[in-house]
Amino acid sequence: MEKEEKEKGKGGRRKKMRFAIGGSKMKLLFITSNEHKVREIRDLALKMNANIEIEHLRVAYPEIQHEDIEFVAESSAKFIRKEGLVGEEEPFFIEDSGLFIHALNGFPGAFSSYVFKKIGNEGILKLLRGVEDRRALFKSVVAFSPKGFVVKTFVGVVEGRIASEIRGSAGFGFDPIFEFGGRTFAEMSVAEKNAVSHRGRAFRKFLNFILSSASMREVD
Amino acid sequence: MEKEEKEKGKGGRRKKMRFAIGGSKMKLLFITSNEHKVREIRDLALKMNANIEIEHLRVAYPEIQHEDIEFVAESSAKFIRKEGLVGEEEPFFIEDSGLFIHALNGFPGAFSSYVFKKIGNEGILKLLRGVEDRRALFKSVVAFSPKGFVVKTFVGVVEGRIASEIRGSAGFGFDPIFEFGGRTFAEMSVAEKNAVSHRGRAFRKFLNFILSSASMREVD
Repeated sequence: MEKEEKEKGKGGRRKKMRFAIGGSKMKLLFITSNEHKVREIRDLALKMNANIEIEHLRVAYPEIQHEDIEFVAESSAKFIRKEGLVGEEEPFFIEDSGLFIHALNGFPGAFSSYVFKKIGNEGILKLLRGVEDRRALFKSVVAFSPKGFVVKTFVGVVEGRIASEIRGSAGFGFDPIFEFGGRTFAEMSVAEKNAVSHRGRAFRKFLNFILSSASMREVD
Repeated sequence: MEKEEKEKGKGGRRKKMRFAIGGSKMKLLFITSNEHKVREIRDLALKMNANIEIEHLRVAYPEIQHEDIEFVAESSAKFIRKEGLVGEEEPFFIEDSGLFIHALNGFPGAFSSYVFKKIGNEGILKLLRGVEDRRALFKSVVAFSPKGFVVKTFVGVVEGRIASEIRGSAGFGFDPIFEFGGRTFAEMSVAEKNAVSHRGRAFRKFLNFILSSASMREVD
């Protein structure tokens, strides 16, 4: 436990991290109920020529009410391990993201998926009717647990603006109202969105970490 | 632990419940960061001639993200005990409430305090602009833990409507837009609001339970 506490610290290269490597292809378990997110990271792993297989496990886990999604994701990862939803030595990751709208004091933020379900894109557009300041930020956090209660997080952010109307049919959630470079995320292909999106950035950091750790990996 | 599990079941009179009774006046610890709620239950205890002293403890505790506020309150009470924020044998209670708006699929519900902080009454009114169906419901849950991980909940509900504008300056939160019998909660005194409100109803159930349990209490 003390050792785990020490390893938990953010940043700092970790020499002794071990991953389950099945044959030549590395397997990573992604726990999420969102198929879109699975498609996004698989597409990215392919583009990066990463020899990684993303396994998808659809299992529900609770999130605590907190405005800091990094804290939420880290807590959830520990909960998943604690409740034995995966094996003690089984590496897995989750991803949490939020839309933070400047004129709404960061709403819906950590509660984005709940708010989307309840009031949708129409609700957000209504709240911003007549509001000039359309600045918004998407943030994504990947929480990766290689084993035990060790959790490492990878953050990705993209700044954009809330469109004045719903546009596009790709993606999911608030994608049709989030504009970046003149197009909404829902007007982009998975690859185009991955190249600039919060989640694409977090996933790339995460995959690069995995690849470099694997190449440096010590065999006990 | 097994005994606690058995006692946890809802409903059903519990014979052996014990409360700390200091002298002639019973003390109950209310854990909340909301002064208004403390004032409401103190006013109610006075009106009921209940010989109960409400002690106020302001301590932060996490809530999980869940649409069912009864579940949220119960989990929080167990967390408070588990983390040792109060003594193992020290009875305490918390209260959680939410505003459920019919036309918004129950939004903001369990996330009312977060939503209030971010978009306020103005945000809710904006979301309901042009919406004819103004039905809304306030729900309150008191989670009482006499000792250990035993938790009993008391629920109060009031049905009303969302006003077309902010009215009144009493109360707190969404009170100025919640109409009951032609007036908003913010246009009522504490006593008037208590008589009809969700929290008044839950508090009354809770206090009646405490009083009847105390009179039936067995001395070991």
